[in-house]
Amino acid sequence: MNAFMEDLVLHEDPRSGNCFKIRLTAALLGIPLERRQYDIMKGETRTPEFLRDVNANGRIPVLQVGPRFLPESNAACWFLAEGSPLIPQDRFARADMLRWMFFEQYNHEPNVATLRFWLLFVGEANLSEFQKGQITAKRAGGEAALAVMDEHLTRSDWLVGDSVTLADIALYAYTHVCEAGGFRLRDYPAICGWLDRVAGLSGYVAMD
Amino acid sequence: MNAFMEDLVLHEDPRSGNCFKIRLTAALLGIPLERRQYDIMKGETRTPEFLRDVNANGRIPVLQVGPRFLPESNAACWFLAEGSPLIPQDRFARADMLRWMFFEQYNHEPNVATLRFWLLFVGEANLSEFQKGQITAKRAGGEAALAVMDEHLTRSDWLVGDSVTLADIALYAYTHVCEAGGFRLRDYPAICGWLDRVAGLSGYVAMD
Repeated sequence: MNAFMEDLVLHEDPRSGNCFKIRLTAALLGIPLERRQYDIMKGETRTPEFLRDVNANGRIPVLQVGPRFLPESNAACWFLAEGSPLIPQDRFARADMLRWMFFEQYNHEPNVATLRFWLLFVGEANLSEFQKGQITAKRAGGEAALAVMDEHLTRSDWLVGDSVTLADIALYAYTHVCEAGGFRLRDYPAICGWLDRVAGLSGYVAMD
Repeated sequence: MNAFMEDLVLHEDPRSGNCFKIRLTAALLGIPLERRQYDIMKGETRTPEFLRDVNANGRIPVLQVGPRFLPESNAACWFLAEGSPLIPQDRFARADMLRWMFFEQYNHEPNVATLRFWLLFVGEANLSEFQKGQITAKRAGGEAALAVMDEHLTRSDWLVGDSVTLADIALYAYTHVCEAGGFRLRDYPAICGWLDRVAGLSGYVAMD
């Protein structure tokens, strides 16, 4: 049993960066997680049972805490990390960390993660015309998000404060595999140094 | 001066629901905010000065706290509300509140808010072919998000726990004006009752 006194089960697809965020948070904090795997390509998160029992929004990851279910990767990371050094003590810094986590879900993930999913798992030839028509905009949106991060990281080793926080973990997940979506990490030298710092953390685990 | 002992300035466009969230949070908590207005239609958040001094991501709202700048509407709401009843005391409930706030930015805002912006402010005739091509998908995405909320609100008066939290404020902002984006509130009866509950809160202020 863990410090939460309840079983923690991660409902995940191991190819998903959103799921990896939670695994990485738990690993850095030494929290054991049971893993239950689904194949999103086979629609396993859209079955009636999944929608009823795990997440009515039909998405993974979901962190199960005893009998309760917590969707949204960044919320699950927050739940695991409260009270730990991964969340800053200072009130402004804590909000600033959440700022990067909302940025991640709004500006980064829909572009950087979606292009990886389309190009690596769906395959460009299998994309719908609608999807193909969005590639240029998602490329530009992803590059803009990476540029905002890179500019910030030229002035600071971590996104918030002097040490790793959930902001770094949330943005690391899809940034470190962004080349699978056609982005070029060598265009973002400050990001490259930061990726190395995250990968060097004690307790770090790699994505499957 | 307020309890933060620093001037609070909201950099906003008053037509934006993301900006309204922060105004509503401050109003419910009795926190005075100075307001500085920008016209996003005129590119006033993309000027070199704005990008350098306020937000390198070129977006409003930004909450200025003394000399520091906090982008992302939901992070600003969090900053204002920490320690207040708008954030639950229970650890799981607090994470569950963040879950709805991330859902808002990922599933709701890019669909519900974007269609309002396009139809109400840009005008359908002025949309690019690329934008026009996305209307159907954004309609479906917005309806799916509203359906998830409506289903949840059939079982509970508030999104998390027994009283209003930031989850309600974050999702209220664009939901209560969603008809300007072509959504029909009468399709979501549980949402309608919840909108009335939010509008009935002590200290409530309306969107400009």
